[in-house]
Amino acid sequence: MSAVRKLYDLAGADPEVRFSPFCWRTKLALAHKRLGFETIPWRFTEKEEIAFSGSKLVPVLVDGEKTVADSQAIAEYLEATYPDAPSLFGGAQGYALTAFVRRWSEGVLQASLVKILVPDIYKMIHPKDQPYFRESREARLGISIEALDAERSAHMAPFLAALQTLRFTLKGQKFLGGDTPLYADHIVFGALQWGVKTSSVPLLEDGDVVGLWMRAVLDYYGDRVGK
Amino acid sequence: MSAVRKLYDLAGADPEVRFSPFCWRTKLALAHKRLGFETIPWRFTEKEEIAFSGSKLVPVLVDGEKTVADSQAIAEYLEATYPDAPSLFGGAQGYALTAFVRRWSEGVLQASLVKILVPDIYKMIHPKDQPYFRESREARLGISIEALDAERSAHMAPFLAALQTLRFTLKGQKFLGGDTPLYADHIVFGALQWGVKTSSVPLLEDGDVVGLWMRAVLDYYGDRVGK
Repeated sequence: MSAVRKLYDLAGADPEVRFSPFCWRTKLALAHKRLGFETIPWRFTEKEEIAFSGSKLVPVLVDGEKTVADSQAIAEYLEATYPDAPSLFGGAQGYALTAFVRRWSEGVLQASLVKILVPDIYKMIHPKDQPYFRESREARLGISIEALDAERSAHMAPFLAALQTLRFTLKGQKFLGGDTPLYADHIVFGALQWGVKTSSVPLLEDGDVVGLWMRAVLDYYGDRVGK
Repeated sequence: MSAVRKLYDLAGADPEVRFSPFCWRTKLALAHKRLGFETIPWRFTEKEEIAFSGSKLVPVLVDGEKTVADSQAIAEYLEATYPDAPSLFGGAQGYALTAFVRRWSEGVLQASLVKILVPDIYKMIHPKDQPYFRESREARLGISIEALDAERSAHMAPFLAALQTLRFTLKGQKFLGGDTPLYADHIVFGALQWGVKTSSVPLLEDGDVVGLWMRAVLDYYGDRVGK
C-alpha cells in the first residue's frame, strides 16, 4: 500500500487558515483528478521542512515515490500521470489557452490583489514568518506594509476593474472551462480564494456572479478539496 | 457551381484600407478553415447594402445560400459547417476558454485602444460616414473626438499595460493556441490590427514579441487572409 498523498500547504498563525493562491490551484487540481490527499500546514520560514523537494516554496506534492514542487509543474505532472481522470486542460489547445488565463490571473488579478491583501496577510501569519514576509514583500512592492495599508482604498479600483473580464465571461457560461471546471477555473479561483481567506473587508458583493461561480467551483468538488 | 463566398468588410475612404477588428477575426477564421472568399468594401452608413442579412454591422458573410452576420456567429457557423477543416476552438473546452480571451480582448484591449484610435479613424473614414461615426462614438465614449485627440498620450498607458498579459503568454508559446493559431489568436490579432491599420503613431516597438506574433499569424495563413 502506497503512502498517503501529501501536500505542503501554506498556513497562517492559525494552522486551519490556508490562503496560498498557488496551493488552492493544486488542491482543486487534485480534487479534479479525484485523488485523495492530506495537507501539511507549512509556514513561509519552514524552508528545511521542504528542502527535500528542492523548492523553497509551496505547494509541494508528495505522491508516493514522486515529489513535485511548483503549482504549474504539479498540474502538468497530474495531467500526465493520471490521464484516465478528467483532464485539467482539455487537450493541447486547451493547455495553450489556459496559459493566457494564468498570465492574466497572475499579472493582473493577483497583482491588483497583493496590494490590498499584504497588510492583512501580515497580521494573520505566524509571528516567526513576519520578518521574512515584511522584508520580501516590501522589497518586491517598493513600499512599506504600513504605507500600503494606508492607501488600501486606492487599490480597490484596479481589482474591481480586473474582475470585469471574469464577470463578462461567467455571464455566458457556468465555468471558465464551460459546463465543468478546468484548471483555468482553479487558477482564478485560487487568486480570489487568497482574497477571501485573508481580506479584512469583503471583496465581492453578495450575489456577484464571481462569488456565485466560486461557490459553484467548491460545490462541484464537494469535500474532496479540503479546507 | 456555387457563388463565390463573399464577406462585407469595413473600409475607409480608401477602399483598400480595411480596419475592423471584427472583420479581421472573420478573415483569419475563413483562412483557418481554408475557405476562399472575396471581400466587398463596405462603409458604416451603407446599411441598405447589408439589410438582407438582418444586421446593420459587418462582418456579414454570404456562403452560398447561407448568410451569417456577427463575427462570433460566423465563427460558430464555420466551426459547425466545416468540421473537417482545422478547428477554430479546439473542442468544447477550448471553445469555453476562448470566451475568456474574447472578453479580455473586447473589454480591456479594444476598450483601451478605442480611446487612442477614434480620432485617427475619424480622419480616414469616408466623408459620408463621418457624421454617423462622430455622433455614435462621442455618445458611447462621452467625450468629443477633439478632446479625445488632445489627451491621446494619457490613453497609451492602459493599452501598454494590457499588452503585458499577451506578452507574457507569448514568451512561453508561439501562438495563443499553442503551436498553431486558433480563433483566440484571431480575436486578439483583430484588435491589434485595427490599431496597426489606423493609428497615426506606431503602437508597438520594433522587435516587440507582440509584433512578432502578429507577423507570425499573417505568415501562417499567407495570402489566404487578403488585405
